[in-house]
Amino acid sequence: MSRNFKEQLADIRAFAFDVDGVLTDGTLYLHPSGELLRTANVRDGYAMHRAVAMGYPVAIITGGSSESLRLRYAALGLHDLYLGCADKPSALIDFCSRHGLTPAQVLYMGDDLPDYHVMRMAGLATCPQDADSEIKQISAYISNFDGGHGCVRDVIEQVLRLNGLWGPSANGLMQ
Amino acid sequence: MSRNFKEQLADIRAFAFDVDGVLTDGTLYLHPSGELLRTANVRDGYAMHRAVAMGYPVAIITGGSSESLRLRYAALGLHDLYLGCADKPSALIDFCSRHGLTPAQVLYMGDDLPDYHVMRMAGLATCPQDADSEIKQISAYISNFDGGHGCVRDVIEQVLRLNGLWGPSANGLMQ
Amino acid sequence: MSRNFKEQLADIRAFAFDVDGVLTDGTLYLHPSGELLRTANVRDGYAMHRAVAMGYPVAIITGGSSESLRLRYAALGLHDLYLGCADKPSALIDFCSRHGLTPAQVLYMGDDLPDYHVMRMAGLATCPQDADSEIKQISAYISNFDGGHGCVRDVIEQVLRLNGLWGPSANGLMQ
Amino acid sequence: MSRNFKEQLADIRAFAFDVDGVLTDGTLYLHPSGELLRTANVRDGYAMHRAVAMGYPVAIITGGSSESLRLRYAALGLHDLYLGCADKPSALIDFCSRHGLTPAQVLYMGDDLPDYHVMRMAGLATCPQDADSEIKQISAYISNFDGGHGCVRDVIEQVLRLNGLWGPSANGLMQ
Repeated sequence: MSRNFKEQLADIRAFAFDVDGVLTDGTLYLHPSGELLRTANVRDGYAMHRAVAMGYPVAIITGGSSESLRLRYAALGLHDLYLGCADKPSALIDFCSRHGLTPAQVLYMGDDLPDYHVMRMAGLATCPQDADSEIKQISAYISNFDGGHGCVRDVIEQVLRLNGLWGPSANGLMQ
Repeated sequence: MSRNFKEQLADIRAFAFDVDGVLTDGTLYLHPSGELLRTANVRDGYAMHRAVAMGYPVAIITGGSSESLRLRYAALGLHDLYLGCADKPSALIDFCSRHGLTPAQVLYMGDDLPDYHVMRMAGLATCPQDADSEIKQISAYISNFDGGHGCVRDVIEQVLRLNGLWGPSANGLMQ
Repeated sequence: MSRNFKEQLADIRAFAFDVDGVLTDGTLYLHPSGELLRTANVRDGYAMHRAVAMGYPVAIITGGSSESLRLRYAALGLHDLYLGCADKPSALIDFCSRHGLTPAQVLYMGDDLPDYHVMRMAGLATCPQDADSEIKQISAYISNFDGGHGCVRDVIEQVLRLNGLWGPSANGLMQ
Repeated sequence: MSRNFKEQLADIRAFAFDVDGVLTDGTLYLHPSGELLRTANVRDGYAMHRAVAMGYPVAIITGGSSESLRLRYAALGLHDLYLGCADKPSALIDFCSRHGLTPAQVLYMGDDLPDYHVMRMAGLATCPQDADSEIKQISAYISNFDGGHGCVRDVIEQVLRLNGLWGPSANGLMQ
């Protein structure tokens, strides 16, 4: 039950990420069109693309929704997009069933209260350095990187490295 | 008269916030259309949405004005929008009269001189960590968070928590 | 000749500012239209507006140029806009002649080598905290604020305060 | 073989830069049009423009691609744009052959694994302060500036200064 973080990492077969505050720094740009613009971090994107190429399903589970988000994640090769999601635990279960996995095999990263319940279900609950205090308390691992500044890259890199799938000698992929 | 901050928090029944420098970091994006684009912080938005859902009126009182601001705050469930406001004290009085409150029951957060007079009227004057020095001097509470980086979430969370309305066990809301 | 900074401040009757790295943090946003988008700091804007209202001419002298810049500064009440300027010293001389001033009465703030020669002409050469090292060496005053984060507000506030024209008791102006 | 950095600088006749994480801080802005918006740093741009004007070829070698990137670099006078590049080593060889140079005469700056192999080829491998750890290990010089915050300016300035081509007395150029 109280296995250490490295042991838990070895069980991970898939990833699921919240968007705002995890893949972004929590800033929304209010565009004149009324759409909420978001940012992406290029190293997070590189890592998610590489994870998918190495056979790790990667899900995006977020209350937010926009066509530009969908385009970005599709371009990275992600197929499991739960945008505009009001029930994150159900999204995680659906994601697992589609890939023949259990929640215990999924690393989830969230930053705020809407992630609380799904983080209690996931095998490995992680968060960015600047997450909400109650989210930090239930996280098995707190990244040294803030939301939008490489926290997603951090956890993917650790899992892939543990399995010999990370580094310059692995085949190069898009940036 | 010199009651401590926690005692003052217990009297709060509503919130009023300036935009630039409070709900944003003070940066305006000069769009080619001529409109001034602003940002929003997702955790501030979550907190304002939750406050309204729990019965706390939340007003936006700002000299700034744009359709994208109006759309953002309306989407969060805010009904008291004083945009393009040249007389903040009158806006506060109008806000109070519409909800049967007195200014003493309102927590206001501002960051700069245009907020000075309305902050002297409000029951609890608060400001972000990076507020103007004269605004800091008249604030009963200075948040540990900067403008646009969670200072609004900070004060709402404290009031709701004091009343048992904050935390993961409270009903989940949009992010 | 080696009078202190406070004595020099007393002679100032006008201001001139570079844009990129002074009124912004030096970041340009590459819009799909091909235009370079810039930002503005709301407290810098408040201070420039107030300076003009109190009778201090404020010039913008920049190599950059865009309609959105022009709209922003015009909205603040600035009439002396030298955008797309290739010869900053001549712009300063023109600005002075239009207002019956000498360069010695102008406070200039710049951040990089294109500001070097005009800063040697101005009465008071100032720069943001994160200016180029050679610019810092010729500055009589280095602000504690970075470009785009209030360095312009800093110097205007000091001049106006010295003349009793700054503070909450002065008449309120737009934010 | 283990000559010091200053000696190596003296051999440099051209520059090649990655974009994301080097000329930017790694943030992509997801525009409603589906395009990825990027930023530029005005001092980096000033330095690249000056380098080209002084006869130093400057290449951009990036997996990213957009019309706004192309417009920005063309406006600075850069002619060697390898955008949407999947094979960075080949791009470097092409760049060298077009200018009669060898890779040993090129300073390259990259920040992440897609830059690994090309950095092993270049005469001088450099990176921003916030580069990936494996990139830092193969860099002869790590700038004190982060990606998007002047790291490109830093290395160009050092090479030009070494050759007497930098400073306010050199002819002024666009900002």
